[in-house]
Amino acid sequence: MFIVEGTAENGIAVNISKLIGSRLVKIDYKIFSDGESYIRVPEDGEGEAVVVQSTHYPQEKHLMELVFIADALRGIGIERITAVIPYLSYLRQNDRFGKGDALSASSVLKIIKNAGIGRIVVVEPHKLDVLSYFEGDVAVVDVSEMIAAKIKGEFMPEIILSPDEGGIERARKMSEIFECKYTYLEKTRNRDSGAISIKGVGNYDFSGKKVMIVDDMISSGSTIIEAAKFASEGGANIVVAYATHLLLADNAYKKIKEAGVSEIYGTNTIPSRDCNVIDISAEIAARL
Amino acid sequence: MFIVEGTAENGIAVNISKLIGSRLVKIDYKIFSDGESYIRVPEDGEGEAVVVQSTHYPQEKHLMELVFIADALRGIGIERITAVIPYLSYLRQNDRFGKGDALSASSVLKIIKNAGIGRIVVVEPHKLDVLSYFEGDVAVVDVSEMIAAKIKGEFMPEIILSPDEGGIERARKMSEIFECKYTYLEKTRNRDSGAISIKGVGNYDFSGKKVMIVDDMISSGSTIIEAAKFASEGGANIVVAYATHLLLADNAYKKIKEAGVSEIYGTNTIPSRDCNVIDISAEIAARL
Repeated sequence: MFIVEGTAENGIAVNISKLIGSRLVKIDYKIFSDGESYIRVPEDGEGEAVVVQSTHYPQEKHLMELVFIADALRGIGIERITAVIPYLSYLRQNDRFGKGDALSASSVLKIIKNAGIGRIVVVEPHKLDVLSYFEGDVAVVDVSEMIAAKIKGEFMPEIILSPDEGGIERARKMSEIFECKYTYLEKTRNRDSGAISIKGVGNYDFSGKKVMIVDDMISSGSTIIEAAKFASEGGANIVVAYATHLLLADNAYKKIKEAGVSEIYGTNTIPSRDCNVIDISAEIAARL
Repeated sequence: MFIVEGTAENGIAVNISKLIGSRLVKIDYKIFSDGESYIRVPEDGEGEAVVVQSTHYPQEKHLMELVFIADALRGIGIERITAVIPYLSYLRQNDRFGKGDALSASSVLKIIKNAGIGRIVVVEPHKLDVLSYFEGDVAVVDVSEMIAAKIKGEFMPEIILSPDEGGIERARKMSEIFECKYTYLEKTRNRDSGAISIKGVGNYDFSGKKVMIVDDMISSGSTIIEAAKFASEGGANIVVAYATHLLLADNAYKKIKEAGVSEIYGTNTIPSRDCNVIDISAEIAARL
């Protein structure tokens, strides 16, 4: 068994290799002048291999490179392939919300399976049930305990805030670990004016409190900014944010900081220079 | 039956729709802030659909969008999907040339098949036999007769030049249509010095002649430039180039023109502003 360093793995492959004492294999990788990826795994092989490959932007290229790595591994004789995918993209497109919608999450998971990958290890997927589209073994890595332990050393929130109803369970869990309250925001649209109003739900008071907004990912940042403004207007003393996957499109980091969020915590599932990043390699290694 | 305009089809879908009298369907398409593609086919459907989607740069995104379109079509009830892929990328990676190489052409063709696409229509693939990796129906569109007829009106070559041995058959065929001679270049590497020497093969004389370099694609342009220099040094009067697929990475167009190529002919399988582009929609429509 060996660990293959993919083309987008942010140093996690070498960490895992040290943690579980497996050999690290680097691939030959280049981009041709027309933009095509070239992948080679210069090894002899049999049995099992674990490839580490995240699928952040450019999502489709990183995904296809995972497929090519799997093909190369099968070509040298590897029989069982596990893909560690710290960030698995397209999971938000997990239903035909409108008629004629592509069910892209399902397409992506089928492509991974058809590449000969029998097992995937995914860190905090957007929703759990979407992984049932993968017709193989699935391990979901829960990093919340470890993340909370790390953040506690620097910051002790008094209220955990989920920016939407979908994140209630995540907020509740975090509040248990931090032994504090939690709440979430509910959006309603006025039928006549179309205006959106936001209200906090439940028994909470932001006044003078340390607030931590918790979400699974930060993309454009607009959701976090909205929640941060709500907490600040409610009198919060300090507002920080945590999200496992720091996609941070365009100027998201700058805009979130400008909205008064004093610190952004996250993990290394996606490269991010500016944030307070916590390594999740050990939690992945524990599932291998 | 209807024709679906993909996300990279350079106007070919509407042309085909007019030529065969089938309805054109436009998709809902946007890119989310994190870079993911959203695809929707806002239609009712049954029976057959034809989707037109090229897979030039960014190759993997265009390929995945084809997969998502196919998924959306199946979601609305389409049973048989034909994909017209004017330029199909990754076909040059058609063998495990070195040990451990990914056989990327095979991976790409499997992904297309597994998306529920039963038939592909491809314009001049890099090699014919590579398409056997597609376990479905394949139609190869040969545009050489039409291309030659169009070019004849502007330029009559006296020698067709293939820049390498792999293109001999293409050059021979073109020379038959133009009723002229053809030749090709042979590269040999000096075992001691490592220097590459190029020689023309067969009975030809560039002196004072109109030369047309013919290849399947132009990517970095280095192959065309090498051949153009060889023809010019041999005394060619005019040198032009034709390639079906104008990938033209980086400054390829400028560099080819600077190397003395007076005109670059090609087709609309890939968008290209600068070249002399010939529409191949009718040749595709004839295969539907």
